[in-house]
Amino acid sequence: MVLRGPLSRVLKSALSSCCLPSRAHLSVAIVGAPFSKGQKRRGVELGPKAIRDAGLVERLTSLENAVHDFGDLTFEHLEDDARYMNVPYPRTVGRANQILSEAVSRAVGAGQTAVMLGGDHRHVVMQDLSVSPDLTHLIQIISFFFFKQLTWPSARLQDTPSRPDLCLIWVDAHADINTPMTSPSGNLHGQPVAFMLKELQDKMPAVPGFSWLKPFLTARDLVYIGLRDVDPGEHVILKNLGIQCFTMRDVDKLGMQRVMEVTLDHLLARKQRPIHLSFDIDAFDPTLAPATGTPVNGGLTYREGIYITEEIHNTGLLSAMDLVEVNPALGASPEAVEATAGLAVDVIASSLGQTRELQDTKQLGL
Amino acid sequence: MVLRGPLSRVLKSALSSCCLPSRAHLSVAIVGAPFSKGQKRRGVELGPKAIRDAGLVERLTSLENAVHDFGDLTFEHLEDDARYMNVPYPRTVGRANQILSEAVSRAVGAGQTAVMLGGDHRHVVMQDLSVSPDLTHLIQIISFFFFKQLTWPSARLQDTPSRPDLCLIWVDAHADINTPMTSPSGNLHGQPVAFMLKELQDKMPAVPGFSWLKPFLTARDLVYIGLRDVDPGEHVILKNLGIQCFTMRDVDKLGMQRVMEVTLDHLLARKQRPIHLSFDIDAFDPTLAPATGTPVNGGLTYREGIYITEEIHNTGLLSAMDLVEVNPALGASPEAVEATAGLAVDVIASSLGQTRELQDTKQLGL
Amino acid sequence: MVLRGPLSRVLKSALSSCCLPSRAHLSVAIVGAPFSKGQKRRGVELGPKAIRDAGLVERLTSLENAVHDFGDLTFEHLEDDARYMNVPYPRTVGRANQILSEAVSRAVGAGQTAVMLGGDHRHVVMQDLSVSPDLTHLIQIISFFFFKQLTWPSARLQDTPSRPDLCLIWVDAHADINTPMTSPSGNLHGQPVAFMLKELQDKMPAVPGFSWLKPFLTARDLVYIGLRDVDPGEHVILKNLGIQCFTMRDVDKLGMQRVMEVTLDHLLARKQRPIHLSFDIDAFDPTLAPATGTPVNGGLTYREGIYITEEIHNTGLLSAMDLVEVNPALGASPEAVEATAGLAVDVIASSLGQTRELQDTKQLGL
Repeated sequence: MVLRGPLSRVLKSALSSCCLPSRAHLSVAIVGAPFSKGQKRRGVELGPKAIRDAGLVERLTSLENAVHDFGDLTFEHLEDDARYMNVPYPRTVGRANQILSEAVSRAVGAGQTAVMLGGDHRHVVMQDLSVSPDLTHLIQIISFFFFKQLTWPSARLQDTPSRPDLCLIWVDAHADINTPMTSPSGNLHGQPVAFMLKELQDKMPAVPGFSWLKPFLTARDLVYIGLRDVDPGEHVILKNLGIQCFTMRDVDKLGMQRVMEVTLDHLLARKQRPIHLSFDIDAFDPTLAPATGTPVNGGLTYREGIYITEEIHNTGLLSAMDLVEVNPALGASPEAVEATAGLAVDVIASSLGQTRELQDTKQLGL
Repeated sequence: MVLRGPLSRVLKSALSSCCLPSRAHLSVAIVGAPFSKGQKRRGVELGPKAIRDAGLVERLTSLENAVHDFGDLTFEHLEDDARYMNVPYPRTVGRANQILSEAVSRAVGAGQTAVMLGGDHRHVVMQDLSVSPDLTHLIQIISFFFFKQLTWPSARLQDTPSRPDLCLIWVDAHADINTPMTSPSGNLHGQPVAFMLKELQDKMPAVPGFSWLKPFLTARDLVYIGLRDVDPGEHVILKNLGIQCFTMRDVDKLGMQRVMEVTLDHLLARKQRPIHLSFDIDAFDPTLAPATGTPVNGGLTYREGIYITEEIHNTGLLSAMDLVEVNPALGASPEAVEATAGLAVDVIASSLGQTRELQDTKQLGL
Repeated sequence: MVLRGPLSRVLKSALSSCCLPSRAHLSVAIVGAPFSKGQKRRGVELGPKAIRDAGLVERLTSLENAVHDFGDLTFEHLEDDARYMNVPYPRTVGRANQILSEAVSRAVGAGQTAVMLGGDHRHVVMQDLSVSPDLTHLIQIISFFFFKQLTWPSARLQDTPSRPDLCLIWVDAHADINTPMTSPSGNLHGQPVAFMLKELQDKMPAVPGFSWLKPFLTARDLVYIGLRDVDPGEHVILKNLGIQCFTMRDVDKLGMQRVMEVTLDHLLARKQRPIHLSFDIDAFDPTLAPATGTPVNGGLTYREGIYITEEIHNTGLLSAMDLVEVNPALGASPEAVEATAGLAVDVIASSLGQTRELQDTKQLGL
């Protein structure tokens, strides 16, 4: 019921000095990336669908955002695609990247905040070895690459238009920063961050289909939150490059409030710049997000995860995000899948304006 | 086994300098308020019963309190009770209030700490629209009103006897402070706090059956803890009146220890005065209190809820409390209902002397 | 995949200045203590087995420790073993202690870190009254006693070899510090700590089979963490002796980071010395450790428990630990038992070198 009549006017008058918190009013572009070659669909293509079924579009719309759902992308399988080292189907992955990057480019070019939805590709790999494990994250690299080609639409940027100077907040149980040489398995599994870092440029092999990709991030542009399962080689890289990491032990020591304070200060103190948020649902405790491929005990609480995204939203600088590793095929029950997908919706909504303090101010008409 | 014999004397001697923490030794009056018109009993009348079945009286008795259970009140339905605006049965509700207020008056007049047990009236409304949604909270208003008419039995009061100067701690996922004009639904659902506040007096309509009720609380006498689902109109009121609120985000930022420090300082720094605690079980996370009508994710942990009540008990100023929204009909299983009711018992017991540090000192005879 | 080839050399060069965190490389001795007289095996003998089945040895081995599993000890029942006061089978218990103490003595004498695995003996007692309730903890007393007879193998000790000057961290929902006179039941249930304390020496009766045991710990050598169900007599003792206790309320007030800071400062500030960790699985919240005999609501979170053990490991001073009260017979489901036993493995592994920051550095060959 909206305000009307004399009482309404009295109330409006009485409340005229109130400071309403700003609402997002974002233009949001949703892009699903259900990578699969088509032969063996084992649930991975259901990740974006599960998140949508949990009410993503309705929720974002209720937050006064203009939401454009571009649906799920479709990807083709290239016939002549021999392995490189132990990376399967590098050219197919490269082509998929190109398709996603074009979609993201269009969205960002139009001034939209991009939201990419992923599935669990590790699972697919385990099933049929048909696709690169962390495909969503690899594709994200391409997103970054294309973001760089665009004139960033934010007026807050003090950098030159052609060099938007992104920063990256990576919320995950895993660091995904192996190089082909440090990785226990040797394949691209868990290596997307290494592709992005300038400091690791001369340590990366020339994977076919990725020649166009140049590292564009420095170690100081990146912060990790939620780590608790780090490979030894990754540990060496993180320590050696001095990357700001908050493991779950650090979260326990400092508390999430302090973690976010340091995170945002580390990335934004020198200057305001666009933030990319990469949120792996396995950052949460497995009791909250059971339907995922590589759960690790001792993860984020619901409130810690929401606090992270509220803080990022409050900067006003979130430019794009991906939410990955929801896998409906791995839930022990429909409830487990719904809980995981619902959590994904909460994370995305909280990143895009949902707060625990206010839900619908504008309807008041004040 | 009590101490006896030589060894007992040795021990008593050795321990003579020990400072035992004080026990409550309260006289507690329990009043159940299972509001229902009788036609369609859909579980709501089972709320107080479920809490009692979970062992409330035994627990409070074991804490050395004198416990008087006045049972559940019975309420009549008035025939000629037309709607006012969209409030159903205002006169019936008014009469019910009167019955409860008399019971509470007797208890408080006799120097007892009053504990009111509620059910989920929202659910009843959804079932048959037969009764006001937040009836327990409305009734609480009347409790306050009658409290004011009494000479407060606490020697700590520095105010005049006729004006006990209550303060109110409201632990809830919801603010329940809409006025009829700001409420999205327009009815009394979620409006009880607005009835109490002097600052909103000229914004409240004259609901039949409530003419005797005058606002008696100022915005500075009230603190909220646990909010995470606030209507836009409520947000405006909370901000405009400068009411001290701790949303779940604030709890995350500050920690519960600091929240309680500020709460008690805000309410008691100027002078010691009686505290009324209104505890909605939905303040807890839905994983802990599933059998309730309007659960919201990201609620209090068990330990946070207990910490709140321990701190309130430790002031020695708790005069009355209500525990509302336990609804056995909404639990998915008997275990869910038992967990919710058991949690209610823990909250009440912790408010009335149960601590995590000591359980039964007096039996020692020291 | 280990590093090899030119890229490996480049990476090794680039990373040469990296400081790898030290790994434990401990020699660990595992001893199971499934006490039972043999007639009525009701699950208690399965405690150590459940923990082993959850992967204890494999996990400790993966942490680069040398693991020696001495299996479960077997205990005999003495025929002529009349009650003393209300302690059943004191001589049988004494003999069992001797057997365990010999095993532990051999391990410690060989420079190993001892890990003792217990079951739920309270349950056994309830079933057939055949054995002392807290047998594992009593046996631990003997472990301490024998530790004292040995030249401590740690080079860090500044004390004389014949007096290793142990300290004790007791993580438990219960204090287990009743004397026979303060105990509500009067029997040895929950009294093991009282046997160890010099300050309580003249208040302890002469239990047959325990004459050789002399108190060896002072009140300042002991810290409790996790208490939330303390008997009144225990409270008096804790307060009177000024023992450093962190109840769950204290954990709520201070946070676990501060709790561990104070704990380690309290025990180690004057001098570095060996730590014995006694970890009762019921210190955790019952939602995490359901398969145990005396669960109490409001316990440690997973992350708090792991933080405790990480901090203890990081001192480099852990000499022995026991993990008690896992009882497979009390789990409501196989999943409940597996969760509890898996938690026990995590606690032990975290005490012996598993960290949330690094998992397998040495494989890098750096």
